[in-house]
Amino acid sequence: MSGLYLEDYTAGRVFETVPVTLNADEIIWFAELHDPQLFHTDPEAAKESAFGEHVASGFQTVAIATGQFISTGAVDGTGLGGPGMDKIRWTAPVRPGETLSTRVEILEARLTRSDPGRGVVTLGFSVETESGLVLTFEATIFVRSRAGGNAD
Amino acid sequence: MSGLYLEDYTAGRVFETVPVTLNADEIIWFAELHDPQLFHTDPEAAKESAFGEHVASGFQTVAIATGQFISTGAVDGTGLGGPGMDKIRWTAPVRPGETLSTRVEILEARLTRSDPGRGVVTLGFSVETESGLVLTFEATIFVRSRAGGNAD
Repeated sequence: MSGLYLEDYTAGRVFETVPVTLNADEIIWFAELHDPQLFHTDPEAAKESAFGEHVASGFQTVAIATGQFISTGAVDGTGLGGPGMDKIRWTAPVRPGETLSTRVEILEARLTRSDPGRGVVTLGFSVETESGLVLTFEATIFVRSRAGGNAD
Repeated sequence: MSGLYLEDYTAGRVFETVPVTLNADEIIWFAELHDPQLFHTDPEAAKESAFGEHVASGFQTVAIATGQFISTGAVDGTGLGGPGMDKIRWTAPVRPGETLSTRVEILEARLTRSDPGRGVVTLGFSVETESGLVLTFEATIFVRSRAGGNAD
């Protein structure tokens, strides 16, 4: 997919993404860097933890899900960064070997008030594994509008 | 610091964390994995992008900031995961070589309704670099209470 402009982001449009499977080594590697808690970094110690098993850091699943959306190509050359994210909810743990299937729905898309070349789009993410829903969140991004062209 | 219990998380308590400096290679490495957009992955192409310079992925700065809090030891052995995050706002870009200084304030701490061994704590993060404020967000975590002891 080549990059989409604001005019292509219509509310209700859905993006399916390529599933990503997360193994134990990847969970440990990310957690040692960014979320060093035993239920993420140590599969054995995790059995004695509150989770009772080895589980992925929630930040890792958020990062994977946003990466899955970016990898659709939807923002290639048209994405202008984003101001924020909201309502991140980890509804169930993600275990080694599980596959993340991420669906992204356009919730809202409009021009920014200050700049006719720039639109603001709200994306609703939902991430499931074989076990069911594990994560939902909203991300807001800026994208070029066709009206604004490729000025910069 | 050894792990803190719910009773230690009083509203207004502030945690200062160890600063982390982010270099260009680390920005590229994270972005290639999780946020493959040219203004994150390619310092040269970034000059022609909307940002006009090479900038870090916002997810990387969120991951670093939460890692900085976890590295204080505050949740060592007492953290029970978390249900979510809210109000993530990237207020300014982070450039290679900048240092992230993260301050965490306890906004609210209370017992959960269902379990006297488990408290719920809301943390307010603010992240600055030499250039000023770059990121704010709230994270909610579950922690053990002393009333609940170490049952699991």
